[in-house]
Amino acid sequence: MEKIPTGIKGLDEMLGGGLIPGRTYLVKGGPGAGKTTFAIQFLMEGVRNGENVLYVTLEEPLETLKEDMAKLGFDLGIPKFHGIDATPVTERKHLFAGAFYEEFGESFERLTGAIQEKVELERYLRVAIDPLTMLKLTVKNELEYRKTFIGFLKSLSKLGATVVITSDLRTSDIEEYLTSGVIELRTIEAGGKILRGILVKKFRGSPFDEHIRPYRITDRGIEVYHTENLFIE
Amino acid sequence: MEKIPTGIKGLDEMLGGGLIPGRTYLVKGGPGAGKTTFAIQFLMEGVRNGENVLYVTLEEPLETLKEDMAKLGFDLGIPKFHGIDATPVTERKHLFAGAFYEEFGESFERLTGAIQEKVELERYLRVAIDPLTMLKLTVKNELEYRKTFIGFLKSLSKLGATVVITSDLRTSDIEEYLTSGVIELRTIEAGGKILRGILVKKFRGSPFDEHIRPYRITDRGIEVYHTENLFIE
Amino acid sequence: MEKIPTGIKGLDEMLGGGLIPGRTYLVKGGPGAGKTTFAIQFLMEGVRNGENVLYVTLEEPLETLKEDMAKLGFDLGIPKFHGIDATPVTERKHLFAGAFYEEFGESFERLTGAIQEKVELERYLRVAIDPLTMLKLTVKNELEYRKTFIGFLKSLSKLGATVVITSDLRTSDIEEYLTSGVIELRTIEAGGKILRGILVKKFRGSPFDEHIRPYRITDRGIEVYHTENLFIE
Amino acid sequence: MEKIPTGIKGLDEMLGGGLIPGRTYLVKGGPGAGKTTFAIQFLMEGVRNGENVLYVTLEEPLETLKEDMAKLGFDLGIPKFHGIDATPVTERKHLFAGAFYEEFGESFERLTGAIQEKVELERYLRVAIDPLTMLKLTVKNELEYRKTFIGFLKSLSKLGATVVITSDLRTSDIEEYLTSGVIELRTIEAGGKILRGILVKKFRGSPFDEHIRPYRITDRGIEVYHTENLFIE
Amino acid sequence: MEKIPTGIKGLDEMLGGGLIPGRTYLVKGGPGAGKTTFAIQFLMEGVRNGENVLYVTLEEPLETLKEDMAKLGFDLGIPKFHGIDATPVTERKHLFAGAFYEEFGESFERLTGAIQEKVELERYLRVAIDPLTMLKLTVKNELEYRKTFIGFLKSLSKLGATVVITSDLRTSDIEEYLTSGVIELRTIEAGGKILRGILVKKFRGSPFDEHIRPYRITDRGIEVYHTENLFIE
Amino acid sequence: MEKIPTGIKGLDEMLGGGLIPGRTYLVKGGPGAGKTTFAIQFLMEGVRNGENVLYVTLEEPLETLKEDMAKLGFDLGIPKFHGIDATPVTERKHLFAGAFYEEFGESFERLTGAIQEKVELERYLRVAIDPLTMLKLTVKNELEYRKTFIGFLKSLSKLGATVVITSDLRTSDIEEYLTSGVIELRTIEAGGKILRGILVKKFRGSPFDEHIRPYRITDRGIEVYHTENLFIE
Repeated sequence: MEKIPTGIKGLDEMLGGGLIPGRTYLVKGGPGAGKTTFAIQFLMEGVRNGENVLYVTLEEPLETLKEDMAKLGFDLGIPKFHGIDATPVTERKHLFAGAFYEEFGESFERLTGAIQEKVELERYLRVAIDPLTMLKLTVKNELEYRKTFIGFLKSLSKLGATVVITSDLRTSDIEEYLTSGVIELRTIEAGGKILRGILVKKFRGSPFDEHIRPYRITDRGIEVYHTENLFIE
Repeated sequence: MEKIPTGIKGLDEMLGGGLIPGRTYLVKGGPGAGKTTFAIQFLMEGVRNGENVLYVTLEEPLETLKEDMAKLGFDLGIPKFHGIDATPVTERKHLFAGAFYEEFGESFERLTGAIQEKVELERYLRVAIDPLTMLKLTVKNELEYRKTFIGFLKSLSKLGATVVITSDLRTSDIEEYLTSGVIELRTIEAGGKILRGILVKKFRGSPFDEHIRPYRITDRGIEVYHTENLFIE
Repeated sequence: MEKIPTGIKGLDEMLGGGLIPGRTYLVKGGPGAGKTTFAIQFLMEGVRNGENVLYVTLEEPLETLKEDMAKLGFDLGIPKFHGIDATPVTERKHLFAGAFYEEFGESFERLTGAIQEKVELERYLRVAIDPLTMLKLTVKNELEYRKTFIGFLKSLSKLGATVVITSDLRTSDIEEYLTSGVIELRTIEAGGKILRGILVKKFRGSPFDEHIRPYRITDRGIEVYHTENLFIE
Repeated sequence: MEKIPTGIKGLDEMLGGGLIPGRTYLVKGGPGAGKTTFAIQFLMEGVRNGENVLYVTLEEPLETLKEDMAKLGFDLGIPKFHGIDATPVTERKHLFAGAFYEEFGESFERLTGAIQEKVELERYLRVAIDPLTMLKLTVKNELEYRKTFIGFLKSLSKLGATVVITSDLRTSDIEEYLTSGVIELRTIEAGGKILRGILVKKFRGSPFDEHIRPYRITDRGIEVYHTENLFIE
Repeated sequence: MEKIPTGIKGLDEMLGGGLIPGRTYLVKGGPGAGKTTFAIQFLMEGVRNGENVLYVTLEEPLETLKEDMAKLGFDLGIPKFHGIDATPVTERKHLFAGAFYEEFGESFERLTGAIQEKVELERYLRVAIDPLTMLKLTVKNELEYRKTFIGFLKSLSKLGATVVITSDLRTSDIEEYLTSGVIELRTIEAGGKILRGILVKKFRGSPFDEHIRPYRITDRGIEVYHTENLFIE
Repeated sequence: MEKIPTGIKGLDEMLGGGLIPGRTYLVKGGPGAGKTTFAIQFLMEGVRNGENVLYVTLEEPLETLKEDMAKLGFDLGIPKFHGIDATPVTERKHLFAGAFYEEFGESFERLTGAIQEKVELERYLRVAIDPLTMLKLTVKNELEYRKTFIGFLKSLSKLGATVVITSDLRTSDIEEYLTSGVIELRTIEAGGKILRGILVKKFRGSPFDEHIRPYRITDRGIEVYHTENLFIE
């Protein structure tokens, strides 16, 4: 079976080669777990293979993200990397405004429309939405959210792209059901230290490693130690 | 007493031979527990015995399910296997549209109607609804859901088919009361690994194994180790 | 003091002889705990003594119940056993329709009326309502439920019958206060196995065994091991 | 300081002699903890000393209570014992209707009025309300309940009687604040058995035993073992 | 830095000398923890130093409080001790009505007004509100309560008095933020006995003892054993 | 990468040099955890380097804060330190009213406007909002709060200042997502004593110490022991 690499060292081994192309995956984690780093690594792996990729940021402004990712060796300024800045905080004009970076400030309805517009103009093989949580927090009730989310997944499914959606750990609604796989980035406090563990919770159409494996956020991004155990005891 | 095999190795021994025909059973499990694999194995066991079977999918599109199940050796394309694609995400026309595969996108009311229509045209000995959770998540309140669910069970009871309904673990409303049996697929995290255990919680009209037995999702589907214990200690 | 036997081996010893006639008792338990078996054993003990008994089923259709209970040696078809099929799922006409078996499908209001009608026509020494939970789940709010339940108890108290009401474990509202005794059927998971324990929680007007005693659902019905302890440690 | 005996063997020692006369006390306990037995023992101690006492029952009908208490050697038929049957279930006329036993069925508003009417006609040195829980369960919201309860306490405070109010364990609203003392009757499950412990949680104007002491419901009523510990370990 | 003694043996050592004058402090504790005794000791320490003090009681009527405190050697009848009886239960005229003792029965709005009126007429160096909980329980929603509480603190801050507000343990809203210090009176059940521990949780402008220290309610009031540990292990 | 020191001994080592200038950080902690001391130390470090700094207090009045901080050696009266007194309790005119200290009493809307006005007149390199909790507690619902908070962050982002926002531990809404880092001040009760631990939970654009380190509030302010472990075991 054809699979595509995630760009995250060690995770592909847990997934038996990588993700199944053309499907949508959920990556869950709390603040500081590395969700954004995960999303960027996934996209830059595509760029490395000559693919057009699209990053929709709802939390960290593209401007500061660009600075932060440069330290990990990722150049978000290269042409294959396309970004939509949908962070609610940003308001001024970007210094590097243009085709790749746009901004939205008014409403999430306008945002959803803008994403659809963008993906209809150009073909992307990898897309990341980071994080879904912000979308959810502005919706008035669960039923309305589910309707919005299902419509959102429909638009994404038309792309033919492999999609990574990041989300808060507490988000345990229909996302886990309607996506083809769920990966959890966990932070466990033990012995006065934060331990990090990655877990593949669901992966349709493929066997997968059922252990929680340790990972670290190094100066090269997320690294998964797929032959180690989180708890040695 | 006449019983029919579930198609799941080891589970029939736990049930004292299999399920009682003509009744409705609930199979509970979280994301990644194997609910869909359970439902397909149950139906394909019927196909193997020359029965017409009906699969109603509310979560994973039939198209990707077909690919995934082929890897487990299940050919969902054979004529005895009838499917209704009621996943909310699907929107385009299916490549293999026809009598067996249909799709619904607008509303669950229309879905419920379509299921009834289908079962009135043809007789099925096995039916699977996978998962009930999606139906529940779109209903506005619990009272309305219960009314809808009771009406749904009424339609199913007219079929004379053995019915398997899958459901989220958290669904603990009237489903467990109004069905003839409850089987739980559990995932327990222990020692940095996911352990899987199957439990028959309720089985009207028959004695049953009251142990939690380990199971695995192998490349032949779910296998229950009915002579082993999940906890050896 | 006069007491009547429950029909459940070992339980009468826990109750110091049995239940006090003419009062209402609550039997609590989760799905698969044996509430229905308890209710039927209680009624069949009355039949054995030549009493008219009334069984109101709100969950399992009388038809399938009849099949299931035959395996335990209980013949629900004998004249002294009167049944009201108030299960919401049943809709077709019963094969054995008649004075003993009736059905209700529309509303619980109609059901409550039908129960009252029935008990006014004939005198029953034992009555079982199995389970109360279904009644509760269709009522809009707690206050309305309490009002309905109090009215229901009033009707029952006029009968002079000994009444057993079964209920979900979570039902912890006014039922425990307004009934003369509470018996709990518990299922405890321990060491990968389901253990069953019975507990008399409240028994007005009599001393009682304050231990949790093990019980099993055998092919002769529920058996309580009133001289054993559930936890030996 | 003058104190009055509670009538419960061993409890007076925990209270340093008994309750302070003219105040209101709360006795909390779950179903089967012995709240009613506590209330009756408290009142019969007054009767033994030639006092008029008033018992307001909201849960168990006076009729069955009379039978049950006779087994513990308490004759509720003697003239000094006055009862108000405010149980919602009772509806028929009492066999022994008269000055001491009355009944109410319609509404709790009418009940509150009847209690006030009664206590204005005659002077009682001891009053028991058993249990408050029933009053609370029929009130629509917490604010309304508090208002009602405060009005109720006002009426009681005018009596000059020592008042015992029983209540469900979960009732943890203003009752614990506005009463002069709180006694808890606890049932703890340990080692497959129910253990019973009594605890004085609050006792204004007096030192008290701060241990949880074991108690039993014997054929002479509640007995507190005030020199023993519930947990010996 | 100038500090004033609390009147509670051992607590001043925990506070590095006492409370900072002119500020407002919160004393939290459950029923029976000794909140009222704490408040009275704090005020009587002021009386001993020739200060005018004001006690606002919202729970225990001044009349019974006077009796109870006399046993601890506190004479609430002396002229420097001023009281406002704002307990909702009291309704009759007080025997010792006059300038010091007043009563309120209708509404808490009127109560708040009366407190303000009183403090505008006379200058108090110490004020105690006991307990705040009653005020909170009669307010319809949290926002309204916060607005009321902030207005209340404003009035108090104008006095220049050192204020002690007692409160239920569960009250964890803005009170802990807007006051200058928080002292907790805890009751811990251990080994079948109630243990009492006092904890300074917050104390602006001063270092403080960060241990939980044991305390007892003796016949001389609260005594803190500031050199002992609650848990010795 | 350029970083600015926090002014807190030991914390800069945990952060790999300090905070990234121009971003917004969240400092979480319960009552008494030292949030205000943290904020003041952060600002005074700027003052020491010749920067204009702005302190917005929503909890402790500037007047008493000035006294308290003087004991830690911080002189809030120096010209570079600018304060906005937005505490809801303060009402009288300040003794030292003027350009640096102002007060607001009516509404938080007016407060938000005042902050914006102030920062538009003068350029600040460091800003502290202490605590955000008060702002949150006066908003009617979560959606409204989120909208308000996002607007607030927008205003702050225009300043180009490094911003520290303090918050209650329980505040776990969008704040943790929309800020560039999260630092937690924890108080753990262990062995009858309060232990204090500081944790960097999230720090965008930089590696950081993932241990919980002990800290104390000394007479020089907060000190972090970045080479020690909170739990030694």
